[in-house]
Amino acid sequence: MLRSQFEEDLKKLHTKFDKMGQDVNIAINKSVKGFIDHDKSLAKEVIEEDEKINFQEQDLEKKCFEMIALQQPVTLDLRNIVTIMKASSDLERMGDHAVSIAKSTIRVKGNKRVLEIEEEISEMATHVMTMVSEVLVAYVSTDSQKAIEIALSDKTTNKYFKSIYRHSIQAMKDSPDTVVVGADYLQVAGFLERIGDYVTNICEWIVYLTTGKIEELDLKNFEENDF
Amino acid sequence: MLRSQFEEDLKKLHTKFDKMGQDVNIAINKSVKGFIDHDKSLAKEVIEEDEKINFQEQDLEKKCFEMIALQQPVTLDLRNIVTIMKASSDLERMGDHAVSIAKSTIRVKGNKRVLEIEEEISEMATHVMTMVSEVLVAYVSTDSQKAIEIALSDKTTNKYFKSIYRHSIQAMKDSPDTVVVGADYLQVAGFLERIGDYVTNICEWIVYLTTGKIEELDLKNFEENDF
Repeated sequence: MLRSQFEEDLKKLHTKFDKMGQDVNIAINKSVKGFIDHDKSLAKEVIEEDEKINFQEQDLEKKCFEMIALQQPVTLDLRNIVTIMKASSDLERMGDHAVSIAKSTIRVKGNKRVLEIEEEISEMATHVMTMVSEVLVAYVSTDSQKAIEIALSDKTTNKYFKSIYRHSIQAMKDSPDTVVVGADYLQVAGFLERIGDYVTNICEWIVYLTTGKIEELDLKNFEENDF
Repeated sequence: MLRSQFEEDLKKLHTKFDKMGQDVNIAINKSVKGFIDHDKSLAKEVIEEDEKINFQEQDLEKKCFEMIALQQPVTLDLRNIVTIMKASSDLERMGDHAVSIAKSTIRVKGNKRVLEIEEEISEMATHVMTMVSEVLVAYVSTDSQKAIEIALSDKTTNKYFKSIYRHSIQAMKDSPDTVVVGADYLQVAGFLERIGDYVTNICEWIVYLTTGKIEELDLKNFEENDF
């Protein structure tokens, strides 16, 4: 009886977590679309809706806390809850980065643009959003093999970042009137890169959930980053 | 008897957390010094020593988990442990940002510099390091009033960021041979700003510890960031 209560509560937690993750992905999608289309009203939407994501984190936190206090889970059950607690912080911060991208949109208005770099940012965002979708599936199915694959695919995020970095630097060197927008491209690419890092964190929690070990799946190495 | 065991274990956790925080502050200090002095060997030290910080997080995590599973704490005791679990993730990521600053140092070598901006970065770093030191004290003494003050002082971090942003953009516009270094100034200032955000997160955990409520102490508002 108590057991089935726990499992039911855990299922509810997973549903809430999954919903939060999907909302975060919508926020990333909107923020990047807003940035590329210079759509200030879309950007404002992202900023306004972030409160809802923050509330979802608080709600998950509260529920996790109550489950630990009332049901006193041990081993895998406890690990399940701890993982949701930690991973929901990661989701919340991914939402914060979507807000940062939205703020860049509002700032960048009216400056000269470099369409090829914006195209690259759009591709990078598509890759990152795929990672977010996949990690939610891997989380719900506790698929640690998939989690490792997703973490590995963060290398592609870093490749995009480096390419956008190179092209932005070149554009800014070639023409001073692209400096403002170039600096924003670097920032937005940086925010997307960090969203990729948060996905990697969640992958680590999934591995932790199955093995009980916290492993760094941060597979970038020193030389690679020395661009 | 059990009670005193719990309190002893909690005290040990606090000591470990405090040590980890101090090590993170040393890493930030070294990484910024390395960046300003163009000292590649100091930068490499930061990168190598980050593993130690990651290990500290894992150790704290393991201890927290064991305490929950074995001693089944409730209310404030449980909240104490959850707070350490969450705040140690924040410390670990602050360490990651010190590594990112160190990587910028290795990248920036041999480019034209702008000393006034480097001076500003140095001042910004001093401010951020003070925040880190203070939050460790506020944490150990569970001083939520102080935590709110520290979170408020993150406004100064944002002011530094904006000023460095403006000056870097101007330098890059004025002279194309400062574009590479200017982009790095923006990145390093961005890393420091995020360290400030992580300190603010820890302030939120401290408030949570005393009130049981998760509050956003992110006191930046929309207009302010619209620089």
